Amino acid sequence: MLVAAGWLLMLLCALPARAEDGYELWLRYQPVAAAKPERAKDYRVHATVLIASDRTPTQVATLTELQRGLEGLLGSAPALADAATVDGALIVGTPSSSPLIERLRLKTAGLGREGYLIRSVVVDGHAATVIAANEDIGALYGAFHYLRLLQTQQPVGALDIREAPRTQLRMLDHWDNLDRHVERGYAGQSIWDWHKLPDYIDPRYTDYARANASIGINATVLNNVNASAQQLTPMVIAKAAALAGVFRPYGIRVFLSARFSAPVEIGGLKTADPLDPQVRQWWKAKVDEIYAAIPDFGGFLVKANSEGQPGPQDYGRTHADGANLLADAVKPHGGTVIWRAFVYSHETPDDRAKQAYSEFVPLDGKFRDNVMVQVKNGAIDFQPREPFHPLFGAMPKTPLMMEFQITKEYLGFATHLAYLGPLFEETLRADTKVQADGTTVAEVVDGSLHGYKLTGMAGVANIGSDRNWSGSHFDQANWYAFGRLAWNPESSSRDIAEEWARMTFSNDAGVVQPVVSMMMGSREAVVDYMTPLGLHHLMGRGHHYGPGPWVEGGPRADWTAVYYHRATQDGIGFDRTTRGSDAVSQYAKPVAAQFNDPQRTPEEFLLWFHHLPWDYTTTSGRPLWDELVVHYTQGVDYVRGMRTTWAGLAGRIDPERHAQVAAFLAIQEKEAQWWRDASIAYFQTFSQRPLPAGYAPPAHTLDYYESLEFPFAPGNG
Amino acid sequence: MLVAAGWLLMLLCALPARAEDGYELWLRYQPVAAAKPERAKDYRVHATVLIASDRTPTQVATLTELQRGLEGLLGSAPALADAATVDGALIVGTPSSSPLIERLRLKTAGLGREGYLIRSVVVDGHAATVIAANEDIGALYGAFHYLRLLQTQQPVGALDIREAPRTQLRMLDHWDNLDRHVERGYAGQSIWDWHKLPDYIDPRYTDYARANASIGINATVLNNVNASAQQLTPMVIAKAAALAGVFRPYGIRVFLSARFSAPVEIGGLKTADPLDPQVRQWWKAKVDEIYAAIPDFGGFLVKANSEGQPGPQDYGRTHADGANLLADAVKPHGGTVIWRAFVYSHETPDDRAKQAYSEFVPLDGKFRDNVMVQVKNGAIDFQPREPFHPLFGAMPKTPLMMEFQITKEYLGFATHLAYLGPLFEETLRADTKVQADGTTVAEVVDGSLHGYKLTGMAGVANIGSDRNWSGSHFDQANWYAFGRLAWNPESSSRDIAEEWARMTFSNDAGVVQPVVSMMMGSREAVVDYMTPLGLHHLMGRGHHYGPGPWVEGGPRADWTAVYYHRATQDGIGFDRTTRGSDAVSQYAKPVAAQFNDPQRTPEEFLLWFHHLPWDYTTTSGRPLWDELVVHYTQGVDYVRGMRTTWAGLAGRIDPERHAQVAAFLAIQEKEAQWWRDASIAYFQTFSQRPLPAGYAPPAHTLDYYESLEFPFAPGNG
Repeated sequence: MLVAAGWLLMLLCALPARAEDGYELWLRYQPVAAAKPERAKDYRVHATVLIASDRTPTQVATLTELQRGLEGLLGSAPALADAATVDGALIVGTPSSSPLIERLRLKTAGLGREGYLIRSVVVDGHAATVIAANEDIGALYGAFHYLRLLQTQQPVGALDIREAPRTQLRMLDHWDNLDRHVERGYAGQSIWDWHKLPDYIDPRYTDYARANASIGINATVLNNVNASAQQLTPMVIAKAAALAGVFRPYGIRVFLSARFSAPVEIGGLKTADPLDPQVRQWWKAKVDEIYAAIPDFGGFLVKANSEGQPGPQDYGRTHADGANLLADAVKPHGGTVIWRAFVYSHETPDDRAKQAYSEFVPLDGKFRDNVMVQVKNGAIDFQPREPFHPLFGAMPKTPLMMEFQITKEYLGFATHLAYLGPLFEETLRADTKVQADGTTVAEVVDGSLHGYKLTGMAGVANIGSDRNWSGSHFDQANWYAFGRLAWNPESSSRDIAEEWARMTFSNDAGVVQPVVSMMMGSREAVVDYMTPLGLHHLMGRGHHYGPGPWVEGGPRADWTAVYYHRATQDGIGFDRTTRGSDAVSQYAKPVAAQFNDPQRTPEEFLLWFHHLPWDYTTTSGRPLWDELVVHYTQGVDYVRGMRTTWAGLAGRIDPERHAQVAAFLAIQEKEAQWWRDASIAYFQTFSQRPLPAGYAPPAHTLDYYESLEFPFAPGNG
Repeated sequence: MLVAAGWLLMLLCALPARAEDGYELWLRYQPVAAAKPERAKDYRVHATVLIASDRTPTQVATLTELQRGLEGLLGSAPALADAATVDGALIVGTPSSSPLIERLRLKTAGLGREGYLIRSVVVDGHAATVIAANEDIGALYGAFHYLRLLQTQQPVGALDIREAPRTQLRMLDHWDNLDRHVERGYAGQSIWDWHKLPDYIDPRYTDYARANASIGINATVLNNVNASAQQLTPMVIAKAAALAGVFRPYGIRVFLSARFSAPVEIGGLKTADPLDPQVRQWWKAKVDEIYAAIPDFGGFLVKANSEGQPGPQDYGRTHADGANLLADAVKPHGGTVIWRAFVYSHETPDDRAKQAYSEFVPLDGKFRDNVMVQVKNGAIDFQPREPFHPLFGAMPKTPLMMEFQITKEYLGFATHLAYLGPLFEETLRADTKVQADGTTVAEVVDGSLHGYKLTGMAGVANIGSDRNWSGSHFDQANWYAFGRLAWNPESSSRDIAEEWARMTFSNDAGVVQPVVSMMMGSREAVVDYMTPLGLHHLMGRGHHYGPGPWVEGGPRADWTAVYYHRATQDGIGFDRTTRGSDAVSQYAKPVAAQFNDPQRTPEEFLLWFHHLPWDYTTTSGRPLWDELVVHYTQGVDYVRGMRTTWAGLAGRIDPERHAQVAAFLAIQEKEAQWWRDASIAYFQTFSQRPLPAGYAPPAHTLDYYESLEFPFAPGNG
């Protein structure tokens, strides 16, 4: 009867209201019993009643989340109780909120403000589970952990979990403008509806806070580092205060990006010189005004003297002078200043990879004790792969905060499946060798190496107004992984992927295994089809969409592709050895020696550090040109493989999400092919070498690829 | 136990996935039985089986919608059947799709392509209900009508309904840019995700088509009239074609706004002169290319020589020359050109209200027969109230298409509750008197007055990426009302409001009556607190947010407020009488005579046509100044009344939608007060008169109101 099956499918896919549209993220709380009735029964045995206080907003948030979660997972939430008169009580709180927990005298020392323990105990002769912490927020984190156990179908009969975060500030940086444009945003507009704030509080703000608290994120910078001074006007401060009020119960403090020239732009002063007394007074008054509206305001994030932003150097002052100006203003309120190290001179033609190090290392020890310097994972700019930033390990007296980019500016926007856990992990596990073998970037960031008093990790958010928050379902995993790694920088990105896949898609092993497998290789695939073997910064100009290895000219050499790949008929790659820009010497000696030698440089960084002839022999035995083509091609092949794997999951994933992922994978394959073909067509004009046998030539001419224009690609700055 | 009840409420409001978030619009298909079990039983008696074909995409859409609707309304969809062997069959189709309907020989003559009938009949000895049409699309419209009967809980036992649209083109104009910014959009970004098209087809596109088909909208202009030439490049045409493919089963044809200078910008020509043979050839080839991708492409909408847009006058040609150029290109394909009359000269200092008439009336009869001229409802620009545009009735040889603005550029953006049905109705029922008393604007638009071969009505869409589509729940009613009035320009806006309220909120009389009552007075309230007694164009510069009666200077006098209100110590208002700009003489003689005399001018248009002293005696007996203050104040009072009414509906409306509307009404009251106070503070500097007794003075000084800045107000062009 039905000949128009395709149409019908399309129409059925339009049934939205009850469909899985990704809005719930990893907090879906799907019934356990449907797949695992025995497990569900066991969970109910261990959650017969719920004993928790509701005297503070955070306690209410904790109780509500547990009720909501258990109702979803088990069909009904346990009844509230005041005492453990039956087996199976779930007891949540702190010694001060719960007399029961006080009586248990659990070892909460060392857990700090945010840590928690989850233990199977006996209370008044009854088996019980206790989620205990020193402060409310720890109990909330513990509650999310407990729910995660059920979501991932772990046993809960004999629990002895003890968790505390390894970093203090676990922060999202939103590059959101007041007009709701998100710089490098691929998930719609800003979720902050600035125009309607503070009067209308979108329920989504609460869901944002829930999601972040569930992975331990405790700070958010609301606005773009390319900041508007308007952000600091009274009207906009009131809007930020309304958001801070929503986030507060979830342990999330609000920070703002500050525009260094605000004293001139909105203060009516003639200068923003950090040593000018009027300027210092203006910032002090402005900070007092902010704290009056937001008593737990976190502080400022500042991008100064970078890419056209104003800063202390405009007045002949240093980054330290600038940071200390703001640090002095927030200090009486307990605030922090986070100063970005992503700077490169407007004048110096030196290798851009060297400039942050050159500018900041001399300032080590010159910052106030409430200043942190925020350093991108690599020295260029969030490329698909970069060696770790040489600043890590090089500023022992200055707390360095890691800055990762969760939004995929350089990794295919929203439609390419690229799980960034391995990228984050690779950087965190990189060995700086500043003291001995095994002094990792993670140990710098968590403060253990240099004894930093302040520690933190920031991620440039991939969150927007799209229904699924992150632009694609799989991009939610990058938000998730960032939070989990900020909590514990030594976590395994594979474990995180599995945890996320179970909560987001299914606990069915037939789903978890292939999904995790797809994810784990996905970022390497992007490296392969975009910038293999250490190539970098080869994307389209401005919007960074698609390949642009031919990009040259314009205002700055280091905003072109040719500056970075340096391809000629003789070879390809950026010589950063001691014979070249000498960027290698910014690393600790053993690392520098390694990167200085092409034979010892890990092949994934080969052309980052070396300019090599097209016939250079790579570890595979193939000449460099052939090896490049092999990598480009295997990147495309990997995407094709993901499509096949995903197609095989039809019926095990809800149709709406399955369809969107399938459509995006098709886009990814098309664009991976485009990257490969355009790159090969371009570089072949230099290598003058044939493709290896069996490798297909580009589908179009180089002229064709160069002619493509995308003036409306999203996220442009 | 719960002391933090406010917090809990906030947290509960964050339960989103199953909440009523407005996504389903008026197609919620809520169970009838919950409130009216007897009625539900009766509906089931009349829908025992469903007999419908599914051989075409439109037939599938019809069948799917009926199944979805009946499942929601009645708990389960009736079984499909091939014959009426039991009582209660619901038979849907056309004589050619359904042998049963063919046998019934119903009088479908006169229904045209899009009309339908719904009748209770006897088929093979069994009671049945038939939805019959000449073409598939008519049957789809009939199915939506049938579902509406159930949604509004009407009896269906003895149906004899016959409906056909009174206008041919019922069109939404999207002012959406390729970067997803929506000019004058207050509901997020464009729902067209241009970047991911054509490869990713958002299921939302189908829901957009369903919603439009449900109210008879059959055309959509995808892009802004301030058009980018890029829209006509092959890559973007492919994206438009993908949308056209989604909309086609729902009877919706795609149109594009064309940039007149495209032959230069993307065609490489030196000129866009409409009489140049190369230009004519370029458009012909471009049109052929579009039709190859979109065989049922509707045609072009053009804004030319208006507000900086290029046009034929750049080459010394007329609007007719420009329109005919494109008309000749689309003619072989059956396309239409819609040429906007919203023009005003860059040079002429004449009253802007007169300029469209002055430019277009001399061209009457000079357009090809596939050209329509699209005329805004009033001569200025979508103000809260304008007298009908004098072009209506003045171009008997040129089909005039009505252009309403659904998005509330001048009526409070998304947060002011302003039901526009009465605005649309007021214009459509206005009496042009061009032939005799009772020749209404509706009769011009539906073609009956002048015998137009083409007819249509366009609405500038208020649709965006916000979950609730329109930025607020009540703004959905404006989309709905536009569609219903385009189908039948003589409909009652009150009937439409009731129908919408029943489907959108509840059939409970305790909801319907107060909601309709709020809606019906809401637009008048906006007129009162913004621009009473015929005042107009007094909003903030650029973004049009908030009051700006003091706006002066800048590039053009007619982009200021002082140009329009002309307040001095002597009086206020724009003299458009024969002693002033003589705009009145553009109306038919009896109308002109009426508007020329302040005593005979309807008081709501008083200051539109007359400059009057502050002590002019109004119909209430109060002097003009006092009357203005009374109107400003009653506007605010009305909003306060809506808040009270709405608060009384708590518990009868789902919490999520109730909370959002309540928050928006609070914003509206604040902003209504702001409009009133700022306007009074400003005009009092001229009137020099005290406020009437009992009327509160403005809360702030005029300086304060003038100091407010909103550089990031949404929707700016």
